[in-house]
Amino acid sequence: MSNTQVRLKERPVGMTNASTWDIVNGEIPEPGDGEFLCEVEYISLDPAMRGWINDVKSYIPPVGLGQVMRAGTVGTVLKSNHPEYKEGDTVVGTLGVQKYAVSNGDFCYKTDTFGLPKEKFLGVLGMPGFTAYFGLLDITNPQEGETLVVSGAAGAVGSVVGQIGKIRGCKVIGIAGGPEKCKMVVEDYGFDACIDYKNDDVRLGLKEHCPKGIDIYFDNVGGDILDHCLGRLNFKGRVSICGAISGYNSTDGPQAPKNYLSLLINSGKMEGFIVFNYRDRYMEAAKQLGEWMMAGKLKSKETVIEGLDTFPDTFNRLFSGNKMGKLVLKP
Amino acid sequence: MSNTQVRLKERPVGMTNASTWDIVNGEIPEPGDGEFLCEVEYISLDPAMRGWINDVKSYIPPVGLGQVMRAGTVGTVLKSNHPEYKEGDTVVGTLGVQKYAVSNGDFCYKTDTFGLPKEKFLGVLGMPGFTAYFGLLDITNPQEGETLVVSGAAGAVGSVVGQIGKIRGCKVIGIAGGPEKCKMVVEDYGFDACIDYKNDDVRLGLKEHCPKGIDIYFDNVGGDILDHCLGRLNFKGRVSICGAISGYNSTDGPQAPKNYLSLLINSGKMEGFIVFNYRDRYMEAAKQLGEWMMAGKLKSKETVIEGLDTFPDTFNRLFSGNKMGKLVLKP
Repeated sequence: MSNTQVRLKERPVGMTNASTWDIVNGEIPEPGDGEFLCEVEYISLDPAMRGWINDVKSYIPPVGLGQVMRAGTVGTVLKSNHPEYKEGDTVVGTLGVQKYAVSNGDFCYKTDTFGLPKEKFLGVLGMPGFTAYFGLLDITNPQEGETLVVSGAAGAVGSVVGQIGKIRGCKVIGIAGGPEKCKMVVEDYGFDACIDYKNDDVRLGLKEHCPKGIDIYFDNVGGDILDHCLGRLNFKGRVSICGAISGYNSTDGPQAPKNYLSLLINSGKMEGFIVFNYRDRYMEAAKQLGEWMMAGKLKSKETVIEGLDTFPDTFNRLFSGNKMGKLVLKP
Repeated sequence: MSNTQVRLKERPVGMTNASTWDIVNGEIPEPGDGEFLCEVEYISLDPAMRGWINDVKSYIPPVGLGQVMRAGTVGTVLKSNHPEYKEGDTVVGTLGVQKYAVSNGDFCYKTDTFGLPKEKFLGVLGMPGFTAYFGLLDITNPQEGETLVVSGAAGAVGSVVGQIGKIRGCKVIGIAGGPEKCKMVVEDYGFDACIDYKNDDVRLGLKEHCPKGIDIYFDNVGGDILDHCLGRLNFKGRVSICGAISGYNSTDGPQAPKNYLSLLINSGKMEGFIVFNYRDRYMEAAKQLGEWMMAGKLKSKETVIEGLDTFPDTFNRLFSGNKMGKLVLKP
């Protein structure tokens, strides 16, 4: 038995590739005093990770060269010298792209799995689910009868945003890439409609599906789609800025929203957030999302890819769109 | 005695000029049933007026070709068939760029002048003052010790925003054009500092004067200055979008904010508003602003220009910066 780790080798310009990463085999570490050893069973792959390897000031420090790539994980405690964790506990945390990790418990929490597949705790019952929950409910306060547009609608966050919107009584329009994803968004996740940005004109699609304008736009993508949504924003419309995936690999930086003065004309707001802001309320979200899931109101899908050696390619599937639902790596 | 009116003759491309307007002499109108005749004593000139003559969907319909140019006014009732207005009442309203106006009272209110010069009711005690009051207090909720940056700091809105910020215990940094205005902002209005955007590097000025970052940016100008402020925004920073004067005469439209993802990184918000949203609370603002004025905590300055025939040139002084404080036209 040995450990495998994916470490950051060089900072990418544009898309990452094989030379961005070092895949290293080594000893399984021993937990010290106040630490535990965790076997990582599933690793979360998220678009935000692309930002974590740029050498710029952000909401968390960048991953250092030579360090294990930061990532959300779920796994099982194998050995513990930590008072709050014992052998066999299921731990959700940020233990990185590796097979075995030692932790002092920072950025970790224990969870009951309720017999659900563990990878759900990286998706609908983990950070992406919490991101959807707080980013929609806290930032935009959706009301019954309002029109909600969600980009990245087939993704781990967007699919949950739209389903919560439906639970709250909104008309929900998704935007996703390709007919297969759009079909899933409508048939599996219950959105009222989904616009295929790869094949259809998004502006016309919004005009058709949002005849009363847009009250809430949950933005995962930035770029032209943000501008189209700003252009149809209603009085007191709200834009929740969750991400801007269309610009993450751009060497020119993200595209600026030309229509930002729609906020002035319509007394609208555009607000960003980070899920970590809500860490004191994760359990509230987990409980509510779990209840909705048990009641059949909230569905989720994961694409699980096996093998740490696939990481360089698998990571880029986040940006090529070649996945369904939450992308998860099994070491 | 005859009436003089300034009417919109043609829609401008870029800056307005003499051929944008018709200056017309005619009869003084008679008030009908439920109407009153008002002598307009002062006319408010505001940057937002530039937007009102573009043929685009906005928060109010554009001024039509051949119509009297819309403008805020203060004046005295000469004759009345309206139950709520009587001869001699002072009326603040939107009676347009003309010497005499008939109104049914829509968008008007009566006011006591407290012996103050009437032009103050177009500035600090009128729409610009209300705009500052609600746009700062309601949109950004300033807290003691926070750093507030205000562009257009020497203007009718900006000068009041900064003074309210000081009353609330903020550190207040202004941005204005030219040494004379910057001196006035600091010495007369009591801002902590003022950056001269015409002669100094705004980015460096913000770095120097906001060493702890920016908690609140009150934006009257848009353009590069908005980007510089977004670039220094603090965690949970707020941007109140009041205007974008740098782009109002641009034929390419307003400049898009390249740094909008600072809202994501810093969990910030950018929110627009229109003073009309608060019409039910104008009296609250007038009372509070009046109290601050009487207590010597709030100062204002007006530039009064005489003659409706000067309107085409006087209007453009809004954009050339050739004025101090609130720009007012006396018919």
